[in-house]
Amino acid sequence: MSLVRLFYPKTIAIVGASQNLDSIGGQPIKYLQKYGFKGNILPVNPKYSEIAGLKCYPSISDINEEIDIVLVAVASKRVLSVVKECVEKKAHFVLIFSSGFAEIGNVKEQQELIEAVKGSGTRILGPNNQGIVNFVEGIPAGFNPLLDAEVVRKGNIGIVAQSSGMGFASIGFAIERGLGISHIATVGNQADIDIMELIQFMLEDEHTSIVTCIIEGVKPNSRLPELAKLAKQKGKELVFLKLGRTAVGKKASMSHSGSLAGDAEVFDAFCQQAGVISVKDMEDLIDVLVGLQGKRPGGNRVVIATETGGSGILAADICDEFKIKTPGLTEETSSSLRKILPSFASVQNPVDFTAQFFNEEDLFRNCLLEVVKDSNIDVLMFSFGPTRGKVAEKMADDIIKVSKTLTKPIFISWLTPEQPFFKKLRAANIPLYPTPYRCVRTLGYIMRQESSMMSKEEKSASKPKHAVQQAVSLTEYQTKKMLEKYGIKLPKGGLATSFQEALNLSAQIHYPVVLKLMSPQITHKTDAGLVILGIKDEQELAASYNALLERAGTSFPQAEIEGVLVEEMVQKPVAEVILGIKYDVSFGPVMIFGLGGIFVEVLGDVARRVLPLTREQAFGMISSIKAFPLLNGYRGRPKGDLEALADTILNVSHFALEQQDKFAEMDINPIFLMPEGKGVICGDALLIPR
Amino acid sequence: MSLVRLFYPKTIAIVGASQNLDSIGGQPIKYLQKYGFKGNILPVNPKYSEIAGLKCYPSISDINEEIDIVLVAVASKRVLSVVKECVEKKAHFVLIFSSGFAEIGNVKEQQELIEAVKGSGTRILGPNNQGIVNFVEGIPAGFNPLLDAEVVRKGNIGIVAQSSGMGFASIGFAIERGLGISHIATVGNQADIDIMELIQFMLEDEHTSIVTCIIEGVKPNSRLPELAKLAKQKGKELVFLKLGRTAVGKKASMSHSGSLAGDAEVFDAFCQQAGVISVKDMEDLIDVLVGLQGKRPGGNRVVIATETGGSGILAADICDEFKIKTPGLTEETSSSLRKILPSFASVQNPVDFTAQFFNEEDLFRNCLLEVVKDSNIDVLMFSFGPTRGKVAEKMADDIIKVSKTLTKPIFISWLTPEQPFFKKLRAANIPLYPTPYRCVRTLGYIMRQESSMMSKEEKSASKPKHAVQQAVSLTEYQTKKMLEKYGIKLPKGGLATSFQEALNLSAQIHYPVVLKLMSPQITHKTDAGLVILGIKDEQELAASYNALLERAGTSFPQAEIEGVLVEEMVQKPVAEVILGIKYDVSFGPVMIFGLGGIFVEVLGDVARRVLPLTREQAFGMISSIKAFPLLNGYRGRPKGDLEALADTILNVSHFALEQQDKFAEMDINPIFLMPEGKGVICGDALLIPR
Repeated sequence: MSLVRLFYPKTIAIVGASQNLDSIGGQPIKYLQKYGFKGNILPVNPKYSEIAGLKCYPSISDINEEIDIVLVAVASKRVLSVVKECVEKKAHFVLIFSSGFAEIGNVKEQQELIEAVKGSGTRILGPNNQGIVNFVEGIPAGFNPLLDAEVVRKGNIGIVAQSSGMGFASIGFAIERGLGISHIATVGNQADIDIMELIQFMLEDEHTSIVTCIIEGVKPNSRLPELAKLAKQKGKELVFLKLGRTAVGKKASMSHSGSLAGDAEVFDAFCQQAGVISVKDMEDLIDVLVGLQGKRPGGNRVVIATETGGSGILAADICDEFKIKTPGLTEETSSSLRKILPSFASVQNPVDFTAQFFNEEDLFRNCLLEVVKDSNIDVLMFSFGPTRGKVAEKMADDIIKVSKTLTKPIFISWLTPEQPFFKKLRAANIPLYPTPYRCVRTLGYIMRQESSMMSKEEKSASKPKHAVQQAVSLTEYQTKKMLEKYGIKLPKGGLATSFQEALNLSAQIHYPVVLKLMSPQITHKTDAGLVILGIKDEQELAASYNALLERAGTSFPQAEIEGVLVEEMVQKPVAEVILGIKYDVSFGPVMIFGLGGIFVEVLGDVARRVLPLTREQAFGMISSIKAFPLLNGYRGRPKGDLEALADTILNVSHFALEQQDKFAEMDINPIFLMPEGKGVICGDALLIPR
Repeated sequence: MSLVRLFYPKTIAIVGASQNLDSIGGQPIKYLQKYGFKGNILPVNPKYSEIAGLKCYPSISDINEEIDIVLVAVASKRVLSVVKECVEKKAHFVLIFSSGFAEIGNVKEQQELIEAVKGSGTRILGPNNQGIVNFVEGIPAGFNPLLDAEVVRKGNIGIVAQSSGMGFASIGFAIERGLGISHIATVGNQADIDIMELIQFMLEDEHTSIVTCIIEGVKPNSRLPELAKLAKQKGKELVFLKLGRTAVGKKASMSHSGSLAGDAEVFDAFCQQAGVISVKDMEDLIDVLVGLQGKRPGGNRVVIATETGGSGILAADICDEFKIKTPGLTEETSSSLRKILPSFASVQNPVDFTAQFFNEEDLFRNCLLEVVKDSNIDVLMFSFGPTRGKVAEKMADDIIKVSKTLTKPIFISWLTPEQPFFKKLRAANIPLYPTPYRCVRTLGYIMRQESSMMSKEEKSASKPKHAVQQAVSLTEYQTKKMLEKYGIKLPKGGLATSFQEALNLSAQIHYPVVLKLMSPQITHKTDAGLVILGIKDEQELAASYNALLERAGTSFPQAEIEGVLVEEMVQKPVAEVILGIKYDVSFGPVMIFGLGGIFVEVLGDVARRVLPLTREQAFGMISSIKAFPLLNGYRGRPKGDLEALADTILNVSHFALEQQDKFAEMDINPIFLMPEGKGVICGDALLIPR
């Protein structure tokens, strides 16, 4: 059912309505009247006959109209009976403000609410939320003191907030920064209507072009990837503030909204891939929303202009930290500036316009006009010092005038508290920040998203379909044979079930060879001494073969023996790498890539990506680990076959996507990365069945 | 000469005084009058007879009074003659506002200014600065439009700023946050009076208890370590914002103030060791100054309290990021809170007071009183949502009242734009921030400094004094012998000048042995094939010995051969580590520690410390690298002898401090870290002479 009536209702009933208009049951009445809601407001409370000049009904069933929204502000133990009445009455939406459900462990009580509406046309938002406000038409179907204190401007930002307080807090800061809001929906425990449905509504709402979501957990099998695609199609922006990122935060989140917070690293990996912005604090959220009011940068080259050397340096330092380029100006621009500016001005990047424009009226505008012409830059960033007063206002006016003629964005850091003329800059949609750090950080967020958007190809390598046997307790040999079907290269060799077969295989593949005992009951072969490396000749082969069977017989008398895997000893790899697959409840299969051993385990030097991947993203994954130089011809050593590695990543990705019902985890470790042109070889592989 | 008259002058002359009171030569006159300066203001300009009601003099020599300060606002080419006049006149201080000196490469012109005052009693501040303002007595001997627009409150913060614009910008933000200022000194090119002298003045000034310094470069052989100690003795705080941290920023800084920016990593290492705070942006600077108005935390355990679940979670996430502990409440506190709060409230950490206090007047204060009693916490942090209005004001009043009775600090994040009652919190010195991130980041800065202060022991291991030969082109053998005198352990072995000596040495130390050819002209022995490892017996020894001499003869016919170093082959070290020494121009010898090979070179996993070190700091250095688990018994492997490693770090530190006149760099690589109780052994060492 569409959520349109939830956001654009004609009739709103309030159960638990109160004559105290500051209480939870009173606030919605006060705000609906204040905002001039044109529909019907229907207070419900058997204690009163009238509230704030409106007729008050004893119960929902006493109302003789179609009801779009029922707001519920009664004690938790009374909620279920109210919901049942609403179903009876065929009300469209029930917004339950009351707390005391799954967020404090009362899962059964919450389940009863879900059961009560099941199969009916009635849907629930909440419990444990603060409602919905439509600022476009002025319909505050919620409660929060902010609605009393502030005038919220209509605008292009829609907010979906799991934590109601955080949602309304974001509006407070948005007002301060001159931003306008279309809707806010607070979500609470998501017993029925969930975050994704609300995001979808906002993506489809004509008044909303930026959807902000303050989220704690993403539910299993989330529709988020689909919504990210929808946002892209519609040319709208999605910006997330994810709470519960750390172990401590997750625990707190659990007790606050009764939902699991999920893995923040996977969430960030998804966002990066999907061209969605993921911020970490309220302030960077608001800063990004300000930045998205401006034009979009076409690349990541920034020229910094300043009138105060120090703030230019600070901005340059921070650009470097966020990997934003600050190339020099073209010779043409430099020499034009030289002609205008005093000799002590720097015409590098940062460009120092100097305080000389205090004395020369048109100097600032003339410099500005030269700099924006430069073909080397995508963004002009002003990093101003504390200049204020009339001179500063004229600078702002010049910027506004010039900006109108540009396709490039202008971003400003102005190291001074709020000035009256800042309003003009905001009205002209020129992003404005109090410090270089916040300005550059915002550019970093927006540019990362842009570059992700640009590099994302929808085409993905073709996916072969294979019939694969059921996955229970596969041996290394069986696992490798499955992987081979997906194009993953194995060491030369095969399974021997007698010494003679082992002898023949070894002769074919040439010594030295490796022997590994295969049994579905023995997964940790190396620890059990069931792998022997570097066998040089027939004599050693015989001794090793017998030793393996003996050890297995002694240590694992019950184990079925599939045979002995005979493989070539892979010589001189450039590196041993790891590919792992984990299944994330929200996003499905996630790939992990890194160098073997301590690189992953001690140093945590890994790259993560949500599947599927494009070939370009596979390369991005390879080159994003810190140890990448070791794969790429470090200190005269041979360069690894990165093309083959990328292919293998895609092949493993196909495998993982197709087989995700059967396996909980996969670990290919090591993969031998051979020198260029020599491919990669799967050394060992382990699948953990579901 | 004391700087007291610079900050507390009685007579101020302005050369280049202008009737346009908004120009650089006019602003100081306007501000001195506005601030009610009680001394004499003496404008100097041959064009006028009067400016702003003051008598105007044709030149400095026409003034018949003792002059404390001369402000110079004339074109750069006229500055030298003005300075000469000032020297003639025996003026105490000349503040040169004019630009056009070392900052644009005019080093000679700046040098002439220095020569002009040399040997006289006159001292220069600048050129290229905006002067000095004493807010305690209201003496603005500088220019900046901020002085026109704002009323600056007297307070405990002194500012020393290399970039004048940044310095005045910090005052703008300080005013906004209710902070008070004692003095600002802008520095410019530091031709004469430098940053360190100004910091020292402020540390000794009775009105200043927090000294803030916005700095680009630290000069060679800086007095900063001594000043950090002085600050500690006086119980005052030093807070730095260092600009020019990155390559791009350094280049920009060079062209802005004509000074080298220095290595930011070394600067940060120094600050951490010295208990000085080093921030990265204007906003965290101001946030820290706000935090330092509050009480000091006694440790790093924070309890977070909230009325909005989401903001509590966010704060908990961020505490984790900054390694601040959020332990649970004591059983006693939890059960007391349980009795007061509704059942759906969380009495963990974060504590959720819930919005229930909207309905119950004393609930908030009662909860607050319970929480602050908890013995498990050092700081109470409120992470409030957007609660505002009367309820919020009452919360603030309760906090102020309770805070007065506490020794623990209360820090607040309040997710709402400025509210009228925030002024009361500031007046009560309760640090207040708009978001959890900024509040926690500030706590992180202050706590790191506190813990550094506490762990810093003044005692350092005793320093042996040694006579060492002159350092030119030492061989590995000579270098090792020097290190041995400082207690650094070498492999068994010695120098052989004949095969017979090599044979005897090998017999003594047992095979396998290592041979290395020693020549003062050959530094890269391994690359030249002049190191042979793993020699097993007398036969191999003979062949290897001859091979080395032959190779040296062929490849380096001119090289003097000192002999062949015969050493034991060190067996089974836990790890090979590196100790390096570099000399930083500002801070002297800096030690670098890390694991050998790619760990340092590719992964950049190193720890840096400015010397000298305490033993505790040596341990801190060892455990701060990411690869530390590899030294500490990783996966059942033996644990390294970390005690011996710490001793070696201290020994190398003594060596480096004593020999710093002779060596530019030192590299001990590898150091074999042996298992516990077996010490460490210096594998190879290289000294680069100055």
